[in-house]
Amino acid sequence: MNETMVCAVGNVATRPVYRELANGPSARFRLAVTSRYWDREKNTWTDGHTNFFTVWANRQLATNAASSLEVGEPVIVQGRLKVRTDVRDGQNWTSADIDAVAIGHDLARGTSAFRRSGRPETAARPPRPEPDWETPADGTDPADTDTDTETETDTDEDVEADAGAEGRPEPVAVP
Amino acid sequence: MNETMVCAVGNVATRPVYRELANGPSARFRLAVTSRYWDREKNTWTDGHTNFFTVWANRQLATNAASSLEVGEPVIVQGRLKVRTDVRDGQNWTSADIDAVAIGHDLARGTSAFRRSGRPETAARPPRPEPDWETPADGTDPADTDTDTETETDTDEDVEADAGAEGRPEPVAVP
Amino acid sequence: MNETMVCAVGNVATRPVYRELANGPSARFRLAVTSRYWDREKNTWTDGHTNFFTVWANRQLATNAASSLEVGEPVIVQGRLKVRTDVRDGQNWTSADIDAVAIGHDLARGTSAFRRSGRPETAARPPRPEPDWETPADGTDPADTDTDTETETDTDEDVEADAGAEGRPEPVAVP
Amino acid sequence: MNETMVCAVGNVATRPVYRELANGPSARFRLAVTSRYWDREKNTWTDGHTNFFTVWANRQLATNAASSLEVGEPVIVQGRLKVRTDVRDGQNWTSADIDAVAIGHDLARGTSAFRRSGRPETAARPPRPEPDWETPADGTDPADTDTDTETETDTDEDVEADAGAEGRPEPVAVP
Repeated sequence: MNETMVCAVGNVATRPVYRELANGPSARFRLAVTSRYWDREKNTWTDGHTNFFTVWANRQLATNAASSLEVGEPVIVQGRLKVRTDVRDGQNWTSADIDAVAIGHDLARGTSAFRRSGRPETAARPPRPEPDWETPADGTDPADTDTDTETETDTDEDVEADAGAEGRPEPVAVP
Repeated sequence: MNETMVCAVGNVATRPVYRELANGPSARFRLAVTSRYWDREKNTWTDGHTNFFTVWANRQLATNAASSLEVGEPVIVQGRLKVRTDVRDGQNWTSADIDAVAIGHDLARGTSAFRRSGRPETAARPPRPEPDWETPADGTDPADTDTDTETETDTDEDVEADAGAEGRPEPVAVP
Repeated sequence: MNETMVCAVGNVATRPVYRELANGPSARFRLAVTSRYWDREKNTWTDGHTNFFTVWANRQLATNAASSLEVGEPVIVQGRLKVRTDVRDGQNWTSADIDAVAIGHDLARGTSAFRRSGRPETAARPPRPEPDWETPADGTDPADTDTDTETETDTDEDVEADAGAEGRPEPVAVP
Repeated sequence: MNETMVCAVGNVATRPVYRELANGPSARFRLAVTSRYWDREKNTWTDGHTNFFTVWANRQLATNAASSLEVGEPVIVQGRLKVRTDVRDGQNWTSADIDAVAIGHDLARGTSAFRRSGRPETAARPPRPEPDWETPADGTDPADTDTDTETETDTDEDVEADAGAEGRPEPVAVP
């Protein structure tokens, strides 16, 4: 609770480094986020400050990020901001890290072909209807969502650290 | 300015509806976002409230979203929240819309193969070095970023409406 | 988890309605949030869309909001967005609510005199030093923070609902 | 555009340092933001990581923050995150700054008496009705908002830098 969440849209700046740790897969990469502002004098968009973050991913997100992300690709990242300080050789060293909750290729820049990670599909879950769905006036055909279900057991001590796919809800079907 | 930004992680609830409008491509779909909470009595994660949004995309983001997104797929969406109210048949009708800035498949749930949209590559741009890159202690090999450059001219009246890929910065190279 | 958080800067649009409920104080008010954009033709800032939210506060936040907020005052609100739909008289009725975590008068618009709510101060807590504090070059005199401590017991079933002052950390002292 | 916005709820860690600069008042202070998590083993809330930020305010926000904020007070801050790196004495030195858009005392922790900054009130502005106001079932009495109007002229080159009170909309009246 009281986490400082950020949602950053930028580019992968270094190839993801993947590791198998005791508590599961981990991956990290550098993210470059450049702001843009409208220059009234030049009447054009101009690059502003660039923030660099170290993005950390765990478990399924780590595995998928490591196999999907290439340097230079545009991404959107949501996660918890951690401003960390270490002392190295007598010097303070600060970094701005993001413990990622979700990462995706930015469709504003290109297309992506998605392939759901293999997960145990034990039982279909009764679809929950959306209560306020607008009557489509234009021939929308809301197909059914998938209904795979997870059976994983979560044994972490720390609720907050548990923001990977495991704690994420299943898709809700629209009737 | 003073927009209420949201970053929502959920599932595509309806197939994107794509249209060619006078000012460019437009797409919209419904997004279901279900919160999760830790039930201390049952000692398990439980589904909470589900928010439904209508996500709107423009231009390249519209084209790519329409061709990339399927119902049920997990996505992360960043955009400006617009709570809109219409009067229809004498009744108020409120919807919660997101004017999307970025949309991506959530890698916490699967892998994605990204393909950059075709754009004019006129000239390479001199790479800007990252000033504070951590010396990698573990054999990271930060490859070069791509350096395609846009030459588009932005002629919109409204700066705020201009949040598509056109106003987005190019990748910054890490030396 | 997976809440859609919003941070909205706007104006109190209706006087807070305060109630004593079974599980504690509750207050709500309407919040108007108007975006602004730079009109390139007129060369001036112009009002854009206005979002209206119903802001809900609980416990100490409810009590303090009800006694501190007046209609028209500028505020900053952080909380969980809840898009809610009811059926009333056969009609869907949607509202955009914010379950507030924090609310404050916006100092960009005026000054505020703060008075900490009375809370049991049972024991001083050893101050935790800030590791990376910049050496002040300009005569800053970082005084000690207060060190009051809470002794409250939290009995909620739902961890997520627990975002009032009770779950908030104590100030950290800067040496 | 493409700024990384953060909304941080924490405590003032150092007394605001105020300065009159060429382009107006400036103030800065350190903000400590401590996360909290539910420890399932101990069955209690526990302090997690503490982020420290340097918060920067400009113009009216600077003046009001400097005169309103004391060390230890709980605040909510919204602004643009700037991860900055300088080289000092041959060492990289990184800081996480927030260019504040809005700052307020957190009413979850206490009460605040607000006093609007003096501004030229030249003309009343016709109130804009809220379209979708819920019929109050509980005796709400939505009073009128104030209707002071600004006549300031904004001459900045940089639209993005313009996030002080000047670019902020006026209160919208609820009928």
